Amino acid sequence: MSRRGRFITLEGGEGAGKSTLLAGLHDHLLGHGVSLLQVREPGGTPLGEAVRSIVLDASRAGISAESELLLMFASRAQLVRERIEPALAAGQWVLCDRYVDASYAYQGGGRGQPFERIAALESWACAGLSADLTLLLDLSVSTGRARAAGRGAADRIETETDAFFERVRKTYRERADAEPQRFRMIDASQSPDQVLQAAIAAIAPLFEIGA
Amino acid sequence: MSRRGRFITLEGGEGAGKSTLLAGLHDHLLGHGVSLLQVREPGGTPLGEAVRSIVLDASRAGISAESELLLMFASRAQLVRERIEPALAAGQWVLCDRYVDASYAYQGGGRGQPFERIAALESWACAGLSADLTLLLDLSVSTGRARAAGRGAADRIETETDAFFERVRKTYRERADAEPQRFRMIDASQSPDQVLQAAIAAIAPLFEIGA
Repeated sequence: MSRRGRFITLEGGEGAGKSTLLAGLHDHLLGHGVSLLQVREPGGTPLGEAVRSIVLDASRAGISAESELLLMFASRAQLVRERIEPALAAGQWVLCDRYVDASYAYQGGGRGQPFERIAALESWACAGLSADLTLLLDLSVSTGRARAAGRGAADRIETETDAFFERVRKTYRERADAEPQRFRMIDASQSPDQVLQAAIAAIAPLFEIGA
Repeated sequence: MSRRGRFITLEGGEGAGKSTLLAGLHDHLLGHGVSLLQVREPGGTPLGEAVRSIVLDASRAGISAESELLLMFASRAQLVRERIEPALAAGQWVLCDRYVDASYAYQGGGRGQPFERIAALESWACAGLSADLTLLLDLSVSTGRARAAGRGAADRIETETDAFFERVRKTYRERADAEPQRFRMIDASQSPDQVLQAAIAAIAPLFEIGA
């Protein structure tokens, strides 16, 4: 039996630098001999990618907050069962671009879906899987949106108001405060290399746990 | 203010004759001057039809029971808010080909998702909307499947085992027994015209309630 892999999730608002950090972490972990599965939410499976196209389609105005929440968990339930759990069981590490904290932040804080509702979904849809480490890239909304504005067409969620993204950020920070063992909050206003070094330092203990 | 419309749902297993009955009911209600919205589940909205294509795609093996349940409710939450509630409020009657009972029967009885989980989803995803009348076309699994076999390619759910459909039927019947005021169970082994006459008789009281 191989040793179970580690599950790392990456969270943060628009323009926080998740993609750049993911690429750097990918190289770092491979350089340390880790067998790595990298996935994203919503998506990561054929079902999840089909859900992603529904949820992020900028032309699809009027999706109810309830439907959005249910679609995010439909994608997540499939991703956990079809890809993440089998990979962890086989000893792979999994690096996931957003996970359940994103539903608390976006559908909860952002859209006002009750946190208890999200917690109830999490309790069965995620098959009990929580991250070993969650890296939160924290950045002011104004800086993040200014960065994201340079990237071309915005998706349906990226076109939300500043107030929406302030609630998203607040929820992320509250969750990080509530679970300091799992979360590492990284100041995303730093340079990409500083952000990467902070993430690498946060990940280092995962090589030791249960070794 | 127009008088609120009536919400009628139609349930039943494969080959029970739902489509034939829907056509007959549609003509009957229009003949009585009812303004009618007819919709189906999953589907009935652009989001719902996109979900339908994911859920029923026969090539998409391996959808988790949890994801299937969440997708069905994502479609339903949108359908209730975008089409059914506005129509009822405007005085239209709504005839819906499957509704929440189908999740109890298929995802609950059929796939083993706990009924309490489905009830919890119903409590918020359906915005408190339950049917005024649910017509259940009851038919033995063997007769239903023999009828459905003549209809061309089966979708992903239609390819399930007889044992699955026996559990679906049992769940439908149990729900009908538990809510006799809302349900009317119709023997679907009768001729199409007999089934239609039974449905018309069941609907007649809806013209009176709260008149």
